[in-house]
Amino acid sequence: MNVEIITIGDELLIGQVIDTNSAFMAVQLNKIGMDVRYKTTVGDNEQDILDAFDRAFSRASIVLVTGGIGPTKDDITKNTLCKYFDTHLVFDEKTLKTIEEIFSGLSKTLNKLTLEQAYVPEKAIVIQNQMGTAPLTWFEKDGKVLVSMPGVPYEMKWAMSNEIIPRLQERFMLSDAIEHQTFWVKNFTESLLAIRLETFENELPAHIRLAYLPTSGLIRLRLTGKGADKTVLEQEMAGQKTQLKSLLTENIISEEDEALEKMLDKLLKERNLTLSLAESCTGGKLASLFTAIPGCSTYFKGGVVSYSNDAKADILGVNHWDINQSGAVSKEVVEQMVLGAQHVFHSDCAIAVSGIAGPDGGTPEKPVGTVWIAVACKDTIESKCFHFSKDRENNILRACNNGMAMLLDLL
Amino acid sequence: MNVEIITIGDELLIGQVIDTNSAFMAVQLNKIGMDVRYKTTVGDNEQDILDAFDRAFSRASIVLVTGGIGPTKDDITKNTLCKYFDTHLVFDEKTLKTIEEIFSGLSKTLNKLTLEQAYVPEKAIVIQNQMGTAPLTWFEKDGKVLVSMPGVPYEMKWAMSNEIIPRLQERFMLSDAIEHQTFWVKNFTESLLAIRLETFENELPAHIRLAYLPTSGLIRLRLTGKGADKTVLEQEMAGQKTQLKSLLTENIISEEDEALEKMLDKLLKERNLTLSLAESCTGGKLASLFTAIPGCSTYFKGGVVSYSNDAKADILGVNHWDINQSGAVSKEVVEQMVLGAQHVFHSDCAIAVSGIAGPDGGTPEKPVGTVWIAVACKDTIESKCFHFSKDRENNILRACNNGMAMLLDLL
Repeated sequence: MNVEIITIGDELLIGQVIDTNSAFMAVQLNKIGMDVRYKTTVGDNEQDILDAFDRAFSRASIVLVTGGIGPTKDDITKNTLCKYFDTHLVFDEKTLKTIEEIFSGLSKTLNKLTLEQAYVPEKAIVIQNQMGTAPLTWFEKDGKVLVSMPGVPYEMKWAMSNEIIPRLQERFMLSDAIEHQTFWVKNFTESLLAIRLETFENELPAHIRLAYLPTSGLIRLRLTGKGADKTVLEQEMAGQKTQLKSLLTENIISEEDEALEKMLDKLLKERNLTLSLAESCTGGKLASLFTAIPGCSTYFKGGVVSYSNDAKADILGVNHWDINQSGAVSKEVVEQMVLGAQHVFHSDCAIAVSGIAGPDGGTPEKPVGTVWIAVACKDTIESKCFHFSKDRENNILRACNNGMAMLLDLL
Repeated sequence: MNVEIITIGDELLIGQVIDTNSAFMAVQLNKIGMDVRYKTTVGDNEQDILDAFDRAFSRASIVLVTGGIGPTKDDITKNTLCKYFDTHLVFDEKTLKTIEEIFSGLSKTLNKLTLEQAYVPEKAIVIQNQMGTAPLTWFEKDGKVLVSMPGVPYEMKWAMSNEIIPRLQERFMLSDAIEHQTFWVKNFTESLLAIRLETFENELPAHIRLAYLPTSGLIRLRLTGKGADKTVLEQEMAGQKTQLKSLLTENIISEEDEALEKMLDKLLKERNLTLSLAESCTGGKLASLFTAIPGCSTYFKGGVVSYSNDAKADILGVNHWDINQSGAVSKEVVEQMVLGAQHVFHSDCAIAVSGIAGPDGGTPEKPVGTVWIAVACKDTIESKCFHFSKDRENNILRACNNGMAMLLDLL
């Protein structure tokens, strides 16, 4: 079952906004066995939107559209949908009620532009949006479906999870089974891993594919199988999985298709362990990954972004002499940082990172990309020096991933 | 001059990777007066890639392609380019040299897959990639251009800035002038702002457009003008800008098209002021925004992610009695947090945030979305209570933006 995603908005084409919606939608669709085959982004331009609808409908059975349904003048998706489906706007009492409820919850009063959100295309099935003022609209044409959703990420996420996915499952009786198996792999570059897996990959049957997803210093390997019979497919996938594992052995960090912070979140909760962080070059990024997860307060005590040497000494108790002698990016300092975090936050586990993210600050002995990471769980400490890249953003992300991978290993 | 972007990779269609490349590319292209009209994402599938090339070439003069040129089997862009442009791969000595240099810098040795990266399409102009093993290839056809670039973000960024943008400027003598003017606006919802600006917007000439870009609790307003004569356009834009400013007055936070952290970065450096942070519900996100900026160590001293109440008391010196009496999310606590940050990090300025990000943790008096923010510069403190949304991610981002906006105001 092929799906196309169309994201609409000038802000996407001028690069002011990064499209995070389509990735979320794809993950949700994959889970119910639907493949996204194309994604198209167009601006708030009627002809371009109409063309995109036409092309998508010529290729796919389901077209999911986000964006361009806000209350302001630059949002033209609703009127363009009317044109495409040869219909017009009618006032919808139920939508008005939803909007009024949302506004009263926010102690806001309706104005004429938000009132216009209660006008909907007559031919559409209207689905109430509990998170915002623009309703979802569902169109049918020649046995195919087009759904228009808001572009605001949290409204779209709510809509996909609660309304669109269940309705798509019901509307299209899905037959093909789909299975994913992800492995997080360390100690390999993409090409070395491909060499290691060459024979395995060549011998894969046509309906099972292997994808390499380099992810800031680690590689996610993903086996995807499709088949008519779920039980047969599961058996086949289990066989391939066993074979793949035997080829990678201790280089597999995890077999879950989750971000590393989510794996740690699960593990720390299960084992009743608490966590704290001491970050220098990652500058709060690690903390933000954990605190993005709802409920992390059960184990996450806090962190120190000890960007200056004074902060390392004053808050985390790192020895000034060691900072001067070995430098802030050193085994001595990062190990004292991890102990300091455990101590200050009274936590069982800790991760500490100190490195030179770049682009400046490198020396011949410690070039940009040199990062020391220490992890601790109770009395056990592990520390390691990494040499990443010249790119600041890349170095920060790689340090985060490797720090989390080290703690996962230690646990 | 119309440009299309095609991003290639199964990882984009299954949602494992968010496409940040095309936004970066669009910003770079806009600066030289080029408009991105369509973006298409396809998987590692030959027919889909060929179709995407065809469609893009039928609409645009310039087609920029990223992804699918890594060394592994799932990367098929290079061979598909050969097919599309009716050419074949030839060995390129210069590319091999570049790859060898990169590998020797990383103390890695070449393997047979990375060696294959030195085979390039014969009809292409090959541009060396100083950041990775896959070279850039530039094709010409019927006066139009297609460029293939790596999908790895830092390689693509380097390629765009250093090679592609200058070459596009040279190859296409650009005539139309383009001017952008962005305003950061506070205290408005999107629809209330649209009502305030209705007459202004209706009276705008056709070649000047206004776009509303809601950005986590604030709105970026963007005026974009195009015209044959740069001087005339600049005068027109200046007139519109003055008019817009008179309609928004003190609600304008900034007229720069920069993220708020970059504006603070500039301002703090200019005024020789230092900054520290005390974050509860934003959980390190604010710190990560500043530390993503190279050179922030000149003013950024550090931050405390005081997720637990103990951390608020132990590290920042918040009074336990106040936490118990007023709650962690209160004026009393957030003001002590901001003072604590100033004190612990010996900084001139500080931002402190304490709130209920959700989805759990709300009470009838303090529902999810309640966030107290305090900012301080030397002896001046300002604090304010906000009521954001039910969405955790949204609340975190809105708290960050509003905290930075408050400090910008105070400075």
